[in-house]
Amino acid sequence: MGLLGSLLLLAGFAAPDSALQKVRQFRQSHENQLLAEYMQLLVIPNVAVDTANLRQTANFIADMMRRRGISGVQLLRAPTAGVAPAVYGEVRTPGAKRTLIFYAHYDGQPVNPKQWAAGLSPFQPTLASASLAKGGQLLPAPQPGTALNPEWRLYARGSSDDKAGVMSILSAYQALQASKLKPTVNLKFFFEGEEEAGSPHLSEILGNNKSLLQSDLWVICDGPVHQSGRKQVVFGARGDVNVELTVYGPKRPLHSGHYGNWAPNPAMTLAQLLASMKDSTGRVTVAGFYDDVVPLTAAEQQAVRNVPNLDTTIREELGFVRPDGGGQTLNELINQPSLNINGLQSANVGAQAANVIPTTATAVLDLRLVLGNDYQKQIQKVVRHMQRQGFFVTANEPTDAERLRYPRIVRLVPKAGYNAQRTPMDLPIARSIVAAVQSTTNQPVVALPTSGGSLPLYAFKEQLNATTITVPVANYDNNQHAENENLRLGNLWDGLETMAAIMRLK
Amino acid sequence: MGLLGSLLLLAGFAAPDSALQKVRQFRQSHENQLLAEYMQLLVIPNVAVDTANLRQTANFIADMMRRRGISGVQLLRAPTAGVAPAVYGEVRTPGAKRTLIFYAHYDGQPVNPKQWAAGLSPFQPTLASASLAKGGQLLPAPQPGTALNPEWRLYARGSSDDKAGVMSILSAYQALQASKLKPTVNLKFFFEGEEEAGSPHLSEILGNNKSLLQSDLWVICDGPVHQSGRKQVVFGARGDVNVELTVYGPKRPLHSGHYGNWAPNPAMTLAQLLASMKDSTGRVTVAGFYDDVVPLTAAEQQAVRNVPNLDTTIREELGFVRPDGGGQTLNELINQPSLNINGLQSANVGAQAANVIPTTATAVLDLRLVLGNDYQKQIQKVVRHMQRQGFFVTANEPTDAERLRYPRIVRLVPKAGYNAQRTPMDLPIARSIVAAVQSTTNQPVVALPTSGGSLPLYAFKEQLNATTITVPVANYDNNQHAENENLRLGNLWDGLETMAAIMRLK
Repeated sequence: MGLLGSLLLLAGFAAPDSALQKVRQFRQSHENQLLAEYMQLLVIPNVAVDTANLRQTANFIADMMRRRGISGVQLLRAPTAGVAPAVYGEVRTPGAKRTLIFYAHYDGQPVNPKQWAAGLSPFQPTLASASLAKGGQLLPAPQPGTALNPEWRLYARGSSDDKAGVMSILSAYQALQASKLKPTVNLKFFFEGEEEAGSPHLSEILGNNKSLLQSDLWVICDGPVHQSGRKQVVFGARGDVNVELTVYGPKRPLHSGHYGNWAPNPAMTLAQLLASMKDSTGRVTVAGFYDDVVPLTAAEQQAVRNVPNLDTTIREELGFVRPDGGGQTLNELINQPSLNINGLQSANVGAQAANVIPTTATAVLDLRLVLGNDYQKQIQKVVRHMQRQGFFVTANEPTDAERLRYPRIVRLVPKAGYNAQRTPMDLPIARSIVAAVQSTTNQPVVALPTSGGSLPLYAFKEQLNATTITVPVANYDNNQHAENENLRLGNLWDGLETMAAIMRLK
Repeated sequence: MGLLGSLLLLAGFAAPDSALQKVRQFRQSHENQLLAEYMQLLVIPNVAVDTANLRQTANFIADMMRRRGISGVQLLRAPTAGVAPAVYGEVRTPGAKRTLIFYAHYDGQPVNPKQWAAGLSPFQPTLASASLAKGGQLLPAPQPGTALNPEWRLYARGSSDDKAGVMSILSAYQALQASKLKPTVNLKFFFEGEEEAGSPHLSEILGNNKSLLQSDLWVICDGPVHQSGRKQVVFGARGDVNVELTVYGPKRPLHSGHYGNWAPNPAMTLAQLLASMKDSTGRVTVAGFYDDVVPLTAAEQQAVRNVPNLDTTIREELGFVRPDGGGQTLNELINQPSLNINGLQSANVGAQAANVIPTTATAVLDLRLVLGNDYQKQIQKVVRHMQRQGFFVTANEPTDAERLRYPRIVRLVPKAGYNAQRTPMDLPIARSIVAAVQSTTNQPVVALPTSGGSLPLYAFKEQLNATTITVPVANYDNNQHAENENLRLGNLWDGLETMAAIMRLK
């Protein structure tokens, strides 16, 4: 049994300590005020293209920090114009020997408001009595003094990913202050504004503020807790890069009757290309795709085995009978690189469908990376695969000459990306973090070598030689990255307690 | 050499006859008025879901007919509520022994206004100096007295498909009247309002009005002239049916990091399903897909060989180097059944793309049929193919129990469809029609056994035992069924002359 296994068995199941009781009392008597402030934060749109609103979000968070007496509040900007700034602040603790820096991101994934459920709008935060997917009903805006049920859901883009991180961290500090509980460590705060866009300027911001951002540990508050509802500590994250693929048919849309059977259909060409990338078990057939992977250590493998396996429960809830992966578990599979189709589009379906041969067909691929993968090399494997399928691969719109030279053309546009990162699970500070989280709950904390999701942890290592550990707060069934994103209120309250415990790290 | 070959060689290349000269003079001196009236017709939206505007279109056309002194103008309705009516009218010619009934349709394909070029809107008809795809520039609305260049294009949904048919036919009759030229035949007019929706109530309307609609020939004015610009007479049309296929992933969209590699991705499932339906040459691999086809007669085969082969020119204009079909010509390939992907959609691409595993992926297939195919049997071939690929095929949204029973589920929703039809090319009235069209042009008329496009000709045969011949007027590069649909003005003027000559059939 590894260190962490022992740690889990030894972790306390005692009554909450007095600090936790005080923090909880503060939260219980301030839920309405905290929720009201959170809804003010959620109402500001936070998608990547909307830099004006991202700046407004950053300013709102800076004000939240100033209201809580946090020092040195400032916006850290990249030199490039139009970049959403990071929000920084700090709290010095006299006599403290360690410094923790708390990270969350305030930007969110793009939204398609039409895809949200009736009565919901991404930036009009709305309560529901439970998950809408499980019969929850929308609730009116809460009046002051309303008792808030922890099972209620708050629907809005960013409600869980990851304004919930910002809110948990800042509310935790507020609770400590109000309860006259001193942190045991120096605190720094760093709230990023470009995480969902692939953190294109994070390295630059970190590199330009190396001394300001020195710490013993970055506590990354992002992602969901375990599907079992147990709190979770995660020691790494997959890397990530997106590529957009466009294949080409005729230069103008053609009548599918007059030209069908003769003019090549780009939707079919794209289907054939994508189908060539995976076998029927979901294993990626791109040559060398699983090369370069640094295997898990024995301790990490043990930790993976210790994670509760809820595959059957989740699968039944999600409504499918055969997962990809040829029999491997979800916990095993997130330790491998992945290739996912984020979206497909060619001409129209539904009411706008017409009898045409489309001019183009587009797919967005999401490549997740594990330790050892390089994101640019991973893209190159896909490029070579497409070349082997007979495609001319170009970064640009094909010219007329290229169209008349190459039978199959694909335009590949890579988006910002970064590599994976893993922190050893047996570092003393890692053990302290797990113990702090464990002190807030009677359920065993889940320790994961890596998250399936991605965070730009690589940048912290590269720019600051920093250690990172992720402590998520959101519910797992939060629809993050999609329509109907939501946060279970109880997860916000639990997150507040978790962050407060970490600020009083033993 | 078949009858038709001889006919083409013998057809007149003489100076225009005096009737043609009078019709042409009328048109030349009334172009502004005709265009103004046509733009009033085009401004009324005509997509299938918009039944209120379809009714308004029908009423506008009925008024156009009354203004021209056409008798018995009435709307022929199906008993079902909300069905776009057909518009009927007639002109008795004393002493005439034959009756021609002129068909066009006033409804158009669905529109996605965002896909139209800058400055264009589907129902704001706009002139351009040439095809926008070839450098044409938008022009201001024409003032009375403006000289209209026949190379100008008129952009609007329906401008070519098929309000151009309505306008050509009614203007031709107007020109004859104004020029005191008597028709040689009885004239009937029938303008359908559901053709682009698959003519779901056409059989009912025909069947309920059998005596009113008796004729010696239906002259179907729809579709484009030959790509060479030559006028064209077409003796049949492919049948058509659409099916919408939806495959299923998780019930809610999932974060592609936390669940990628494990939760099945419906976009990949759909890609694999579609890819299984065609080989790399574009040949359909659905078992039995090319069975049931009634071969062309020797005369029809000869006619196909007589059609000018412009494949290389069109291919280069359209910007692709390798057509589907394994070396067969476009003219040969439209005499085979086809399977086309009209559109694909799963989650989002572009600015709205997010890192998700989508819940569903949808494709719309267009199946074209030739003589001998039955549209329901053709769908069943696709169903059996999908079953052989391991899919559970259902007409409905899958239930939870089905989701947990079948690894791969596809929902198939068939749309209205109909079979193909061909009229023998050697009928005396067929020869008269070709001669009438030939009398208006010095270029040899192209005679096609079948059009690649579809028309509900089967319904005329079945309900009325009627003979049909198609005489199209639109330019071939008209973007029909797609964004930026347009009509070359010269084609409207040529169409007027063609229809007038047919009304004076010898």
